[in-house]
Amino acid sequence: MRMVDLILAKRNNREHSKDEIEFIISGIMDGSIPDYQLSAWLMAVCWQGMTIAETAFLTDAMCHSGEVLDLSSIGAIVGDKHSTGGVGDKTTLVFVPLLAAAGIPMAKLSGRGLGHTGGTIDKLEAIPGFRTDIPISEFIAQVKEIGMAIVGQTQDLAPADGKIYALRDVTGTVESIPLIAASIVSKKIAAGSNLIILDVKCGRGAFMETLEQAQTLARTMVEVGKRLKRPVTAVVTDMEQPLGNAVGHTLEVMEAIETLKGRGPDDFRELCLTLGAEALVTAGKAEHEKQAREILEELIHSGKALDNLRKLIIAQGGNPAVIEDPSLMPTAKYQFNFVVPGKGEKYISHLDGRFVAEACKVMGAGRSKKGEQIDLSVGVVLQGKIGARVSGGETIAIVHANSPEQFEAASVKLNEAFTFTDAPVAVPSVIRSCVV
Amino acid sequence: MRMVDLILAKRNNREHSKDEIEFIISGIMDGSIPDYQLSAWLMAVCWQGMTIAETAFLTDAMCHSGEVLDLSSIGAIVGDKHSTGGVGDKTTLVFVPLLAAAGIPMAKLSGRGLGHTGGTIDKLEAIPGFRTDIPISEFIAQVKEIGMAIVGQTQDLAPADGKIYALRDVTGTVESIPLIAASIVSKKIAAGSNLIILDVKCGRGAFMETLEQAQTLARTMVEVGKRLKRPVTAVVTDMEQPLGNAVGHTLEVMEAIETLKGRGPDDFRELCLTLGAEALVTAGKAEHEKQAREILEELIHSGKALDNLRKLIIAQGGNPAVIEDPSLMPTAKYQFNFVVPGKGEKYISHLDGRFVAEACKVMGAGRSKKGEQIDLSVGVVLQGKIGARVSGGETIAIVHANSPEQFEAASVKLNEAFTFTDAPVAVPSVIRSCVV
Repeated sequence: MRMVDLILAKRNNREHSKDEIEFIISGIMDGSIPDYQLSAWLMAVCWQGMTIAETAFLTDAMCHSGEVLDLSSIGAIVGDKHSTGGVGDKTTLVFVPLLAAAGIPMAKLSGRGLGHTGGTIDKLEAIPGFRTDIPISEFIAQVKEIGMAIVGQTQDLAPADGKIYALRDVTGTVESIPLIAASIVSKKIAAGSNLIILDVKCGRGAFMETLEQAQTLARTMVEVGKRLKRPVTAVVTDMEQPLGNAVGHTLEVMEAIETLKGRGPDDFRELCLTLGAEALVTAGKAEHEKQAREILEELIHSGKALDNLRKLIIAQGGNPAVIEDPSLMPTAKYQFNFVVPGKGEKYISHLDGRFVAEACKVMGAGRSKKGEQIDLSVGVVLQGKIGARVSGGETIAIVHANSPEQFEAASVKLNEAFTFTDAPVAVPSVIRSCVV
Repeated sequence: MRMVDLILAKRNNREHSKDEIEFIISGIMDGSIPDYQLSAWLMAVCWQGMTIAETAFLTDAMCHSGEVLDLSSIGAIVGDKHSTGGVGDKTTLVFVPLLAAAGIPMAKLSGRGLGHTGGTIDKLEAIPGFRTDIPISEFIAQVKEIGMAIVGQTQDLAPADGKIYALRDVTGTVESIPLIAASIVSKKIAAGSNLIILDVKCGRGAFMETLEQAQTLARTMVEVGKRLKRPVTAVVTDMEQPLGNAVGHTLEVMEAIETLKGRGPDDFRELCLTLGAEALVTAGKAEHEKQAREILEELIHSGKALDNLRKLIIAQGGNPAVIEDPSLMPTAKYQFNFVVPGKGEKYISHLDGRFVAEACKVMGAGRSKKGEQIDLSVGVVLQGKIGARVSGGETIAIVHANSPEQFEAASVKLNEAFTFTDAPVAVPSVIRSCVV
């Protein structure tokens, strides 16, 4: 087999066999396929696409390019959740304790933030003492003991994905549904879980900008999961605006705690319940969604889900007192009001999450490259979102900053984030579609 | 400017500016653009194509990536001819002395054979003593003195093309009309001529298999020539079967000499006259094609064209006695008859030049990689071509071989080259279309 022939095959829209895909992945791993051939093949994949069969072969080969965790000692079902990345996405902080309370062991590997999306691992570090660099053996032991753990992603899982992604990033081949699907699912399968719940973000703050793209990605991942005999459930959710109200590390942890207390923003709560209900039905813990939602609502209402967060924090060395006293987390010096410009009544028609993220980033909350130190205290809490009726001069965001200059810089970005209109605007639904 | 953005631009079907194309070519030359980005961009070009404007920018930038020959001291018009490569293509050997006799100085840079197509430089070396490794200064002096020269291509012309081609060859990005056009025209312009006659081969023995592809390539090169103010004329010619009857180095030189003597196969003679007539009209040496053909036919009839070949051979150190005595060239030991299989009358319906070329290659006439020694004596002389009515047992090819085993091996290939049918088959025309 020669790589040039496989490039030509893909260029000419022929379907790759399992052997061909395995040849490519093993060639990447042993260095026998040079980057210039790999990048040409990646562009040919962007051009001609891949069938579900090819995508499943690719996912499987990437998954087996390194260690595959064996979580079978935990139980028959071990859950994991992944989001394609958005602004204000603190779902994991609610989802893991909530699902664990419902009896699904949650073994969650999370990443750090890069670019305009935040990372769960960074957010958890706002909790004093919280450790995420836990060895896999301890990770498994903790899930067995308390039913959940959230740790940082290791480099050993699906290493082919790391190599391919690094090349895609510099060769204009990131945008490709089969490549994105294989990247996400291969890492999740390598992480050992067998109940994979995917949150596919859709909209201008997300990687998939249109509903059609997001649905295609979601369907592809669900189909690949079927072929590889790992149940994958996907929910397409809205990212036309930030999720919830809080954007920024400490602020998002606070919002997650509020949500586990039965408060918190409607859209964020709705997303957690929908994702959780899908997981419960897939796992056979509920017969249908309605029943599943009732179970989850009761777990929040009774405080069991919040208790679980406390257990999780304690197990990972954090100070659980933050649940009652958020000021124990890094807190910004000032709170400034960002107000509606002009006069008169109007409606928020757009609220671009990328600019809200940039507002946080200019205050030090974001990373431009790996390893950069970030400020966990700063952020933005939105007071109005799309569809809200507001008046000139009214506060629509509270900016948590460490200097007036930071607020000035953030305001420039927030001005770009909000668009207003005179006519009423419908409040968008956070759930766009479910794919099972 | 960042290469990743240019890859994305091409991927998203945006047109490159002159600056962008120049950024890419200079990045290739100074090594600042890595191969893996270049190959991804090349595949994106295969995918999305290029406008004529982009192709002209690319051609110009590649042309100026190295030395550009200045032939202005030779005269106002200096001609050059290029073929996209075929089997049995000895056109240069007739075209150069013929056009020079018509008053157009011919400064021809030629290549060696690789793969299934032969190279003019190899063919000329069948003439004892003929030198083709002549320095550029001598090359120019010779064209001034006798009106023509044929020398080997230097590595210095359009070096970006060499780098790009080497990568295209291993990344499945050879087939792309704008890339092929830019490669051919950039080298021809860098070679200094200002009257460029292109022979675009079309058919199963050629790079462009369909007439439509060949015409698109021809039109693209003519348009690029216009934009770069170098007149380019293109003729699309048939390569469904070998050109002329002889395939093999000595044998092709012999056929070229025969053609300059007013004999030679009809199709080959027709191709030389058509290409030559186009050149004469473009150069203003004739008012229309009919007049141009009369001039060229008279130059053959009078022996002036043949005299010119003699002058060329003498000027480049070869033995002109080969014109009268071909046995002075490397000659194979045996001549075997390859006969029509089976019984009864039939017609030749296909004659695939690639298998005829392979028949020669298995006898040692072809190169698999650069620098390989080849046998100039062996080859095939076809006695019947497409449309011929033949009988079982009749000789349709004479195989010039140095052993019976070579003949056996060649016969296997020739059996694949010929296809027969019971119904009459039209004799195809060698000229498919002219693009000016």
